[in-house]
Amino acid sequence: MKTIAIVGSTGSIGETSLKVISKNKKKFKLIFLSAHRNYKKLIAQSKKYNPKNIFLTNEKFYKKIKSRKLIKVKNIFNNSNKIDYVISGASGYDALDLNIKLLKISKKLLIANKETIICGGDIFLNLAKKNNCKIIPIDSEHHCIDFFMNNFLQKKEIIKKIYLIASGGPFYEKQIKYNEKIKNVIKHPVWSMGKTISVNSSNFSNKVLEMFEAKILFNLPPEKIDILVERKSMVHAIIQLENNIFFPIVHYPKMEIAISNSLKIQFNENKNLDNISLNFSKPKNNKFPLVHLGHKILKKYSNSGMIIFTVFNERLVDLYLAKKIMYGDIVANLVKLFNKKTIIAKSKIKINSIKDIKSILNFAKNYKL
Amino acid sequence: MKTIAIVGSTGSIGETSLKVISKNKKKFKLIFLSAHRNYKKLIAQSKKYNPKNIFLTNEKFYKKIKSRKLIKVKNIFNNSNKIDYVISGASGYDALDLNIKLLKISKKLLIANKETIICGGDIFLNLAKKNNCKIIPIDSEHHCIDFFMNNFLQKKEIIKKIYLIASGGPFYEKQIKYNEKIKNVIKHPVWSMGKTISVNSSNFSNKVLEMFEAKILFNLPPEKIDILVERKSMVHAIIQLENNIFFPIVHYPKMEIAISNSLKIQFNENKNLDNISLNFSKPKNNKFPLVHLGHKILKKYSNSGMIIFTVFNERLVDLYLAKKIMYGDIVANLVKLFNKKTIIAKSKIKINSIKDIKSILNFAKNYKL
Repeated sequence: MKTIAIVGSTGSIGETSLKVISKNKKKFKLIFLSAHRNYKKLIAQSKKYNPKNIFLTNEKFYKKIKSRKLIKVKNIFNNSNKIDYVISGASGYDALDLNIKLLKISKKLLIANKETIICGGDIFLNLAKKNNCKIIPIDSEHHCIDFFMNNFLQKKEIIKKIYLIASGGPFYEKQIKYNEKIKNVIKHPVWSMGKTISVNSSNFSNKVLEMFEAKILFNLPPEKIDILVERKSMVHAIIQLENNIFFPIVHYPKMEIAISNSLKIQFNENKNLDNISLNFSKPKNNKFPLVHLGHKILKKYSNSGMIIFTVFNERLVDLYLAKKIMYGDIVANLVKLFNKKTIIAKSKIKINSIKDIKSILNFAKNYKL
Repeated sequence: MKTIAIVGSTGSIGETSLKVISKNKKKFKLIFLSAHRNYKKLIAQSKKYNPKNIFLTNEKFYKKIKSRKLIKVKNIFNNSNKIDYVISGASGYDALDLNIKLLKISKKLLIANKETIICGGDIFLNLAKKNNCKIIPIDSEHHCIDFFMNNFLQKKEIIKKIYLIASGGPFYEKQIKYNEKIKNVIKHPVWSMGKTISVNSSNFSNKVLEMFEAKILFNLPPEKIDILVERKSMVHAIIQLENNIFFPIVHYPKMEIAISNSLKIQFNENKNLDNISLNFSKPKNNKFPLVHLGHKILKKYSNSGMIIFTVFNERLVDLYLAKKIMYGDIVANLVKLFNKKTIIAKSKIKINSIKDIKSILNFAKNYKL
């Protein structure tokens, strides 16, 4: 029996994880569930899944429910024994601090948060090593590559290129309006996801973040990382070997698969590829200029550039979702910002410590967009 | 520098191999070229590629050119030093004897001859082990699976199923006429191949032979071996893991890739999957009844059943190509024959020795069709 805990249990990754675990009750002991603010849902989950304790990462809300003397509410970071699996469903670049804390209490940290990997970079990965914590990416693209590289590939050198596969989002075959409405933007063709990631999918910034993540996680040179579109989200990554054999990594688009796989439990599904059709294409640069920008940041700048892009993008998406800017402003601003001398200079700064990360994060968070 | 030799150098595999080797002259020393009868082409190849000696496996023709006192003509089986790579492009079930002899003079035997693997079965594989000879399949389907299993897969148990991919042949979307003309039958959509294998592709008997071959080579249970169609011959096999992740193994349809890969030399090709579309479908049982028959032989009978199918099919194709039977007679006869009690009884006989193989081969060769 393995111990397990979920941070962000009220989000989509948290809920999927609970579904997977509840189908394999005998294999797991649920140590805690935590959410950021949604204490109502957390309490409901607590009643249903009976974890040893629950926690809210937002201090105000934590105090609020703690004062209700619910016995089970306890600070998760005081956990003395390392937990076998901690699933971190926290989102955004602010999750970095939280995930650093989780390294200390986790043997394996399952993480779908691109921003933590991008902002934390090598510093985060080294901290994980120091804490004897294995990082397992559970977003489908990186999970597939990680699974292939860890289980099958002895020599990374035989990789010619990896392709992160994009669904293409709602506008791949349509014209994009500069003032596109939120409801059209978040209409993802395959996955049902949060609003921010849906916006990110629509203009390929999500795939740019994934390229950054791949560079850090797999330590590959920029020219070996690329993007292709497959509209059905059946293919998650393609590994091209030096001998020109390609391995598309394919599974039905279900979040359960990466989670089950990471927890080393069977995911039963009786499906095959009969009647499946897969079409690959490159996103056009003039329609999706962020792909080009992403490659440029990857090749020319340091991790600082990746962090700045990540924060700027998140801030711009927040502004769009708050109806303070138009849809087209997100991409237009990102492109414009990365032509500015200050931004380019900042993007080249080498990062050597958590302090350096914080400094770049602060710059990007406070820069007047 | 590795030593290399080609048996069947005048055929399509032989010619492709020579093309690959001649691009990598410094890496290989060409020990011999051999053909069955086509001495004119063999002599021309000898002049062009300058092997240490040449040989004809057909005795009559061998004597004929030997008597001409061409210095280089020498019996290849007297080769005292083991050759690093021997490429065997010999075809048909009669190639078994030849390939058994080659085990003794080869460190690695590259083989595209399904019939040898099927008829030789475990006996042939054990003989290879005894002779310290590694068998490398170079037909694209088995090569891809072999490559994946040998290089990447530690535990065969995690395989849920392997799919051998068929192009579907010339009639996949068309009606098949019982009296279809040879020129229509051998019009393969992708590969340019010999007549027999083209006929075999058109009615899926080729894929049935490949299922048999896969069972022997990879020692998988029959229910883990299946067929899917992908019309462009870009996908050669699919490995489905227990966790429901699929790995299609993809390369452009060029014989050079499997050969280069087996010889551990780089195959340079600047291609990617942009604008590639892959469609998978199951062949329909009522249109291609041999698929069903193949599964039945695989599940219910011993290797004898596979040998009998192989020989009957080859004999029937020969009759068709000699215009003695109609196209539809090939499949109709195979289905009818495998409903006969004698054939079923013979198909269940266990094979324990070369003698047993010869006995079944003789039965099948001489059975009145």
